[in-house]
Parts: sequence; structure tokens; C-alpha cells
Amino acid sequence: MADLQLADLHGSLTDRALTSMNFLNEVANHYPDAISLAAGRPYEEFYALEDLHSYLDTFTRYLRDELGYDAAAVRRTVFQYGRTKGIVHRLVARNLTIDEGIEVDPEAIVVTVGCQEAMVLVLRALRADPADVLLAVSPAYVGITGAARLLDLPVLPVAGGSDGVDLEDLVAVVKSARAEGLRPRACYVMPDFANPSGLSLDLETRRRLLEVAAEQDLLLLEDNPYGLFPATGVDRVPTLKALDTDRRVIYLGSFAKTALPGARVGYVVADQTVASPDGSTGLLADELSKIKSMVTVNTSAVAQAVIGGKLLESGCSLVAANERERTVYAANLRALTDGLATRFPGGEVTWTVPSGGFFVVVTVPFPVDDALLEKSAQEYGVLWTPMSHFYDGDAPVNALRLSCSAVTPAQIDAGLNRLAALIAGHL
Amino acid sequence: MADLQLADLHGSLTDRALTSMNFLNEVANHYPDAISLAAGRPYEEFYALEDLHSYLDTFTRYLRDELGYDAAAVRRTVFQYGRTKGIVHRLVARNLTIDEGIEVDPEAIVVTVGCQEAMVLVLRALRADPADVLLAVSPAYVGITGAARLLDLPVLPVAGGSDGVDLEDLVAVVKSARAEGLRPRACYVMPDFANPSGLSLDLETRRRLLEVAAEQDLLLLEDNPYGLFPATGVDRVPTLKALDTDRRVIYLGSFAKTALPGARVGYVVADQTVASPDGSTGLLADELSKIKSMVTVNTSAVAQAVIGGKLLESGCSLVAANERERTVYAANLRALTDGLATRFPGGEVTWTVPSGGFFVVVTVPFPVDDALLEKSAQEYGVLWTPMSHFYDGDAPVNALRLSCSAVTPAQIDAGLNRLAALIAGHL
Repeated sequence: MADLQLADLHGSLTDRALTSMNFLNEVANHYPDAISLAAGRPYEEFYALEDLHSYLDTFTRYLRDELGYDAAAVRRTVFQYGRTKGIVHRLVARNLTIDEGIEVDPEAIVVTVGCQEAMVLVLRALRADPADVLLAVSPAYVGITGAARLLDLPVLPVAGGSDGVDLEDLVAVVKSARAEGLRPRACYVMPDFANPSGLSLDLETRRRLLEVAAEQDLLLLEDNPYGLFPATGVDRVPTLKALDTDRRVIYLGSFAKTALPGARVGYVVADQTVASPDGSTGLLADELSKIKSMVTVNTSAVAQAVIGGKLLESGCSLVAANERERTVYAANLRALTDGLATRFPGGEVTWTVPSGGFFVVVTVPFPVDDALLEKSAQEYGVLWTPMSHFYDGDAPVNALRLSCSAVTPAQIDAGLNRLAALIAGHL
Repeated sequence: MADLQLADLHGSLTDRALTSMNFLNEVANHYPDAISLAAGRPYEEFYALEDLHSYLDTFTRYLRDELGYDAAAVRRTVFQYGRTKGIVHRLVARNLTIDEGIEVDPEAIVVTVGCQEAMVLVLRALRADPADVLLAVSPAYVGITGAARLLDLPVLPVAGGSDGVDLEDLVAVVKSARAEGLRPRACYVMPDFANPSGLSLDLETRRRLLEVAAEQDLLLLEDNPYGLFPATGVDRVPTLKALDTDRRVIYLGSFAKTALPGARVGYVVADQTVASPDGSTGLLADELSKIKSMVTVNTSAVAQAVIGGKLLESGCSLVAANERERTVYAANLRALTDGLATRFPGGEVTWTVPSGGFFVVVTVPFPVDDALLEKSAQEYGVLWTPMSHFYDGDAPVNALRLSCSAVTPAQIDAGLNRLAALIAGHL
């Protein structure tokens, strides 16, 4: 007899949000020779081991020369327990000013173990009561849904529509939730080249979203992993946080795509004020820090040093640091959408043409499920992601997500041939 | 008006378990020149920046030479997203065999962001229902209490007594909880030189604890951060996990004291089997891995590489790697207890004489509260920890914890003089 029963463990463990990630990883591991148009991993050809050494040295020089630390303090900063909110907060603030035009007090930043921990901290703080719910623009990144599941926080979908968010639906969802006695705490949105939809909000939609959030007294959780990667000829649009004059936006930052995933360093900007019953007022960042002290204590100082060094070596501009990467992603995205146009001229198969990022959604005239993915991997040697993984519920979804970030144009070409063969068999 | 009300955020944020850590950090930050007999940080004089470079190189050589990875795979392992359960699992398993006599399948290990994340994963998995409760030997490490608070998991104290755990009380607590309709999921215990009590379980108590756990069908969460640091002349006692023939023990491992806290690498051994409703059986480690994918995704590969390199450079023996540290800690512990004996010959003040570890508990004939700590810091220049922080509730506690891990014998001497002056004023 087994030691434990799955039914006696937390409900999230049998929830699709958590099992989905596992399933997708398993398929990828089972078919290592398949071409992966599934992985949203960053391009890895520019990684070099010697850079890690250089980043560490650059960061310790910064501690010494710019912050004036003596040798013992430098060692202590990198080796010991340290500041819960992190040790690269000043550099993150500098980066936000330079790349995003966001001016933020470094004390309002919590450096986290990837953006995922930032989501967990924010959702833990906001989920105080069983009536609390999160809104999320649908289809939604599985990481936010999964984090919500861990915290028993229901997620209400808001239609994405063709603008990236349907503001009328947002208002309707808020109102109907409140009518049911629920308390919508925030709405999660990825305004730039969203995962999985590829959609971006234009400037006008961003301004209106901020107005709606103010009218409805709703926080916005802005997640921005892909914003530095617009397609060729596309200008970047200001983030919600840059447009936010009202501390309405909690900004979730990631270095996974702009530096390296292996550091697991992200952050959250939480400059909202929080009033205590005793009349004192603090920052939401400090409340998140208390939670962090019981989740991971600190973000690895060694990993922060690597990210800090990378930031310093590019004058704290990740736009500058990612010139080569941006070119690769833009060329791959173009190869992907051009390749789809060549292979599917008939109109039965359609796809998005995103203005940047890693992801294209392909719509087909039949349901795309996990069994089809298994068949695609086994018989056709190509991996992708069923769009059904980004929706709650079991309704069939006639679409799949393609990613072009961790492949070459030749792999895109071969992968699309295989995908076209698979689809041809189902038309 | 503030953007948010603390009363609208999660209840843990006003709970003593979370605010206590904050308060103690604030006192320490306010009085940086005070001698700290409070910090449980490891001794830092042996840390050297160049070791980080060496550890990274050693680990990447291991990937290449021992695991046979090519250059691209080595880079990918350190820079990219990777295996959720970690990349140093084989080395951790080797370390457990060499130092602890624990034989464990590397697949049953989840490498975590410090031991703290391991606690969060385990408690999240076990807390399925509002009737679930955790038992913890009292006084308890604040990290386990805090993690439980985040997950709305009540903690029932089990008396520590003079043996490190009062087994009769354990049985009584389990029975009374069950009689009330509660479901005790596990009992948390630190059998070696516990934080904060300093107590250790002898071999006989360990065997009986395992028997009681089997009789009561209870999991044990064994936390072992200090086991490698016995006092001079003291032999190490086998861990509960080494004695466990029944997969009754979930083993929580830390590298913070035996390698470096700044890596934030810990792990959990979870070899328990878990049965699914469909009849299949897996490892608890794989369920924890699913949760981890939504908390931190991966433990920093860079940080794991540092710990992996450190393990490799000592033949995977942390006993061997910590010979100098063990000597320092043993000498400091001796200096602390000898120093107390010199200063308090009268019997009004008593203290524990632990067989190892970092902590001594001093009992005084008056309540020790936060106000006294503030006074001690401001007027006497010495920091310590009120034992009240390790108990639930507001009952006054006439004791304080002294730590001797991050100080020199001279600082211990001066710190004790200051403490003696403070106490003299209250006798």
C-alpha cells in the first residue's frame, strides 16, 4: 500500500494548471529529437560560461567602488543571508528608468526568485478571504493560474478580444463578481506580446484600461517578460506602469528572457501604500517582503550578483544588452509567419501576426488536444502547445501555440513542414 | 488615503510569526554597532570570492567529464530553465550517503530555494483541508511557523521537555486533535542541536519517536541544519531519516550553514509513495515538484552549480569541508557556556549546555520581552533573541536565546559582559 493518497494532498495537485506543465514537459522529454516549437525558452547560442565569472566580478567591483563596501562587506553581501528585498534593487530601478521610463523608489522593489515567486507573493498578500478572486485576461499564462491554484484563489477570465483586453467584458466581470459577493482584487494582464496570445495593447487601450481600473477600484498586475522584443520596424509602447499616475499597477519583472533563466531572478514593483490599523503607512513591497521571508528568505545573492553584473556591463540597459537577441527573435517571428503563409494559402488555417515576442497562435478547423500533440511528437517529430492549456475548463479549443525563440530559421522551416503534414491529415 | 488597508491583506501579515522576523531585523539594523549574540548566521571569515569561480568551474567540469555533456549542454544546464527537481540531486544523494549513511534515490530529492522553500512545498502538499494541522516540537523554529501561517495551516505545539521531544505529549496532542475532528499531517522536529532550544534527541529517543510516529500513522518532518556541528568530544547521532525503515520521515536539508547561505540552496528528501485514484503510484517528490513549478519554477542553476562545485571539491563530504568551521563553533559554544558560568555563579540565572550547534538558552527570573531587547541594544550594545518569539501566544517567557556562530571569542566575552550588566539591573 502507498504511503499517501493523492486525494489527501492539496487540490492543486490534481488541477489542470499544475498537471498541464508536467504533461508538456514529459512529452518534450519523451521526444528529445522532435523539433520544439513549444518551448518559450530564450535563445541560448549567445550564452558563454566565462560571462558568469565576468558578471560576478563586475558586481563585486560595483559593491566596492560605487557603494564603498570594504572587502568583508563585499564577501558578506554575496555569501551571507541578506536584505529580504534584495541587493540589486538600485540597479533594477536604474534599468526601469533607462529602458522603460519608469521612476521608482528602489525601496518599492522586491527582488524575487524569478517572476513566478513575485506572482506568489502578490497573490498571497491579496488573497485574504474566500470571497477574494483574481481576474486574468484570457487566454492566460499558466504560471499565474498555477500560483492562484496554490493559494486557493479563483481566477475569473476576462476576454482578450482582438485588442488584447476587452474592456467592456472586464467591467462586466467585475460587476457580476461583486454582485455575487466576491471581491475582485486585481486583474492580471501581459500588455506586450502576450504569452500565449501574442497580442499587445495599443497605447489608447492601455490608457483606457488604467481608467477602467481606477473607475472600478481594481489593481492591475502587469507582467512584462517580452516587452524588449518588438518585431522589425515596430516601436515599443509604454508599459502600464510608465503610464500609471495612481499606483494602480503592480509591475512584475523578469530577467529570464533579457538576461538568463538560470539565475532565477525577477522582481516586483509594489509602490502601493498600505495603512495599518495603528494609523501608520508603509509600502506594499514591505508586506511582500514579510511573505518572502517565509517562502525563500532571500533571492540567491550569487544569482543576484550575476544579474547585477549583467546589468552593469550594459549601463543598466537591457535594450542595449539584447540587440543581438532582438534581431534573432524578429527574424524568427518573420520566418514563422511567412512560413505559415506559404504552407496554408487556403484560409482553412489562420494565425496571428504579432508585433513582437515569441508566440504565434494557429487556428485550425478541428479541436487540438493532448492526444494530437502526442501524435505530432511521435509520428511527425514536432512539438507545439495546445491552446486548451491556457484556458480553464474542458471546452475543446481549435488552436495551438507556436514559439520561435529557441530555434533556428532552418528548424522553423522543418518544423512547419512537419506541422503542415500533421494538419493536412486532419483537414 | 492609502491605496490598501493591511486588514484587507492576508492574515499572516499581522501574525507574530511574520512580524517577529521583521522586528528582529529592524532592531539589528538600528544598532549595527551592537554585538550580536542574536544572529544565527554562519561564520563568514572563511568565505572567499575566488571560491565562487572555482565552484562554478568544478561543477561545469563535472557536467562535462562525469556526466559526459558537450559544451552546449553544459551551457544550457547552467543558463537555461531546467529540471524542476534540480541539477545537483546526484551530488546531494552522494553527500547523504557519505555524511549521514542515508541511501536515497536521487529522484526522491527536490532541490529547493533554501530549506524554507522545502518547508513551503511540503506544507502546501499536506494542507488539503481546513481540518489539517501540523504538529511542531516547541519552542519551534520561526520559519516553520511562518510557512504554516502563509498556508493557513494551524500549528499545534508538542512539548520539547528535556529530551528534545516529549513523546507522551506527542501522543496526547495527536489523540486530542483527532478527537476534535482535526487531521494531524506531520510533526516537525529538529533532532540535532535544535534552533532555538539547543537540545538534541538521543538515539533511544529517536527510535521511540519513529515507533510513535508509526503507531500514530504520522509523518515526521526532520529539519537538520546544524547536525554537522557537534561540540568537542561529542559523537554525531544518526538522523531520523537514517533510522527510518518505513518512509516515515520527510528530510529537510540545508546548505546555508554547511556551504553558504547566499546560494539559497536546500533540498527535501520525499521518498514516500503517493497513490493516484487511477491506481498509479508515484513519489511525493514528484508532487512537490509540481508545486515548486508554480512557486519558483527552478532553483537557480547558477546557485546550484556553486553548491555542486563545493560538494565536489570535498568529495561530497560536508563533514570534511567543515572541519575548520566545526572547530570554530565548538570553541565559541564552549566560550559562551563557560562565560555564562563565570558571570552567573548564583543560580538565579541558568542556561543550557548543548552538545553542539549554535544556540544556548538563558533562563532569567523575569519576563524577557521585545522592550527589553530594545533597551539591551540601545543602552547595553548587545543583541539576543527573546525566546517568546519561538512560542505561539502572548504568555511571558523568562528566557532568551544566545547564538555564537557569527562572533569571535572576544566578542562573546564583551557581549556577555554587557548582557550581565543588563541582567544585573533586573535582578
